[in-house]
Amino acid sequence: MKHVRALKCLLCSREFQPEEVEYTCSTCGEGGILEVLYDYDRIALLLRRENLAHDDDRSIWRYKPLLPVEPDSPRPPLAVGWSPLYPVERLRHALNLPGLFVKDDGRNPTASLKDRASAVGIVKALERGAREVTCASTGNAASSWAGAAASLGLKSYIFVPQTAPQGKLAQLLVFGATIFPVTGTYDQAFDLAIEATARFGWYNRNTAYNPYLVEGKKTVALEIAEQLGWEAPDKVFVSVGDGCILSGVFKGFADLLALGWIERMPQVIGVQAEGSSAIEQAWRTHTPLQPSPAVTIADSISVSLPRNGIMALRDLERWGGRMLTVTDEEILEAMRLLGREAGIFGEPAGVTGLAGMLKARDLGLLDQKERIVAIVTGNGLKDVASALQAVRMPPAIPPTLAAVEEALNSPVLP
Amino acid sequence: MKHVRALKCLLCSREFQPEEVEYTCSTCGEGGILEVLYDYDRIALLLRRENLAHDDDRSIWRYKPLLPVEPDSPRPPLAVGWSPLYPVERLRHALNLPGLFVKDDGRNPTASLKDRASAVGIVKALERGAREVTCASTGNAASSWAGAAASLGLKSYIFVPQTAPQGKLAQLLVFGATIFPVTGTYDQAFDLAIEATARFGWYNRNTAYNPYLVEGKKTVALEIAEQLGWEAPDKVFVSVGDGCILSGVFKGFADLLALGWIERMPQVIGVQAEGSSAIEQAWRTHTPLQPSPAVTIADSISVSLPRNGIMALRDLERWGGRMLTVTDEEILEAMRLLGREAGIFGEPAGVTGLAGMLKARDLGLLDQKERIVAIVTGNGLKDVASALQAVRMPPAIPPTLAAVEEALNSPVLP
Repeated sequence: MKHVRALKCLLCSREFQPEEVEYTCSTCGEGGILEVLYDYDRIALLLRRENLAHDDDRSIWRYKPLLPVEPDSPRPPLAVGWSPLYPVERLRHALNLPGLFVKDDGRNPTASLKDRASAVGIVKALERGAREVTCASTGNAASSWAGAAASLGLKSYIFVPQTAPQGKLAQLLVFGATIFPVTGTYDQAFDLAIEATARFGWYNRNTAYNPYLVEGKKTVALEIAEQLGWEAPDKVFVSVGDGCILSGVFKGFADLLALGWIERMPQVIGVQAEGSSAIEQAWRTHTPLQPSPAVTIADSISVSLPRNGIMALRDLERWGGRMLTVTDEEILEAMRLLGREAGIFGEPAGVTGLAGMLKARDLGLLDQKERIVAIVTGNGLKDVASALQAVRMPPAIPPTLAAVEEALNSPVLP
Repeated sequence: MKHVRALKCLLCSREFQPEEVEYTCSTCGEGGILEVLYDYDRIALLLRRENLAHDDDRSIWRYKPLLPVEPDSPRPPLAVGWSPLYPVERLRHALNLPGLFVKDDGRNPTASLKDRASAVGIVKALERGAREVTCASTGNAASSWAGAAASLGLKSYIFVPQTAPQGKLAQLLVFGATIFPVTGTYDQAFDLAIEATARFGWYNRNTAYNPYLVEGKKTVALEIAEQLGWEAPDKVFVSVGDGCILSGVFKGFADLLALGWIERMPQVIGVQAEGSSAIEQAWRTHTPLQPSPAVTIADSISVSLPRNGIMALRDLERWGGRMLTVTDEEILEAMRLLGREAGIFGEPAGVTGLAGMLKARDLGLLDQKERIVAIVTGNGLKDVASALQAVRMPPAIPPTLAAVEEALNSPVLP
């Protein structure tokens, strides 16, 4: 990986070569998140915008020289990335925001943005010769990791909170993962997966512990810029749990700035659920991260102690981003709006970015002239039970036209 | 639509011009399924293989001159089609079938192949100036129709059996459809939707009633051929309920034969669940279709009276296709195999084609040298309850390493 200059610890600034370190800083321990630093001059020789225009590879691997993998590493088989960036005409009209786009990352192989990180992570596992992999996750990272592992014949061991949605558990089991449903929180599952890594040698994909995941997630920003003709949007809204996707979005645009492919950093707005808002609180009050018990319908971003919080706060500060919170009801309203006006079905955490955009609009933070992107991070089919809380199931009717007419005239029908 | 020569009734062979007829033959009534006939000489002037190689449009609309829509009709916004055709290396190895491919159509916007038909159907609705649309469906056609309608601001009225999986109902409701859950079978919902069309004037997408759906579904065959470098595979396996996707697959390859883009028709093998096998029975016994009560875990192909049976049987006969049946247990085994060996999660009906391929292999019907495609028609997240029948959920553990070790040593863990 000659194009990777170093892995730099966010706490002590010590730099490592990739072969010197596996997960976090050897001095600072678990809090010492490592950031991948690139040699952009070298990358500029390998990757050109003009060549991308003719590249048939519609996946994250079109940006391979910008990813922290060996040039000759095999590419995992599942087709990850290049999700649609929709101009959502009807939503634009309904909201009077003519520059709005929705990036539907629920179109990935296991139906969430996490597939981007898992694809890069699984290549790192292969590079290290790992045959067994692990992670702790609220559900989406786990199912994407188990799917990527299955596609390559690696054995996966997955720690999830017992309360993870059925859809995500079903994915894991069908992908042949060995699951440990933990009678505890995501945060407890997270720590247990790290203990298990030390004990069993499984390659670990825990968020903010494995330094390569942000690099996979950044591809969503690379795609947004390319899909907009190499122009950065004005604002990007994205849901925030651990803060790893948020840092990925910043990193993608930062890479493009370093390469001179875009001219400015968009304002990136991270959106948390009110019931799981540690990063927003730290950002707003300029105080250190305080863990607090998480309670929200958006399970994928329900996190008491955001593991990538330090990097996310650094990025928000460095690039002039900001944070917002939304209520669970606002999340469900965003789900309904996106479904009804765009035909896109997002899970609660998936539409939290859009919910934040709606809030920003209400707060007068948006300008009609701006190009605004809301990233939908996961498909609504991932968590049907929550979706059913957003809607009302009408009563069944007998198969007669009279019953149809009666139902149509009934005030309870939507 | 100068490239459409006529719509021809399958029963009486009467030909209509598109503007003369809406759904079925005016002489034969509901049984008189209409088939779209094309002027291939005209199409050959509009569409060339060489041009497709440079076409950036990775959706079914790259084949627009082969679709029964007006050249200037608007294109619906959701990105439908161009799903991955995976060479599934590990599955090839496990099955000793080095020419096996899996086409993952669960990657469509509402996570099933039905999006292809709904995309074409919704353009026909727009061409007719419809603002309200309807259909009856076991679930997937309905959710794809409601999604397409929502993306264009059309109002949808949907008839589903009350027993449709929760995931599909959630999609419908989030897309803002007015749902009529019918206390009866799919077949009763089907008839009721046609009555409602007559009564309320809603544009109807019922399978085999609307003549344009097969044309949307055929795009899966066009893509398979293009993804294989314009060579037809030897065999294609696909699940069969009403028989509309089966006819779509035949039609796509037939179009390419007519254009001279491929040299032969692959053998297309339709696969039904044992508990819903009317087309297989009629095909095997050379007798007319006999409706019989359908009972299978594969809800999307649980059909007592296959509405497109006549066309499907005609196509099987004309092109030398064949039918197979599989048990529900074989379907669940195919689901597990595909998940574990390829990282692809299909719903029961989605993997029924693959289950049939496994059966064909056991019956000695396959040759190692053949190129074989199994089409996965829908994502497993559509029907999580059924998926959970294929797997076993391990017991929860406390968040301690001791509990992990105990679980790893327990014989109940997968």
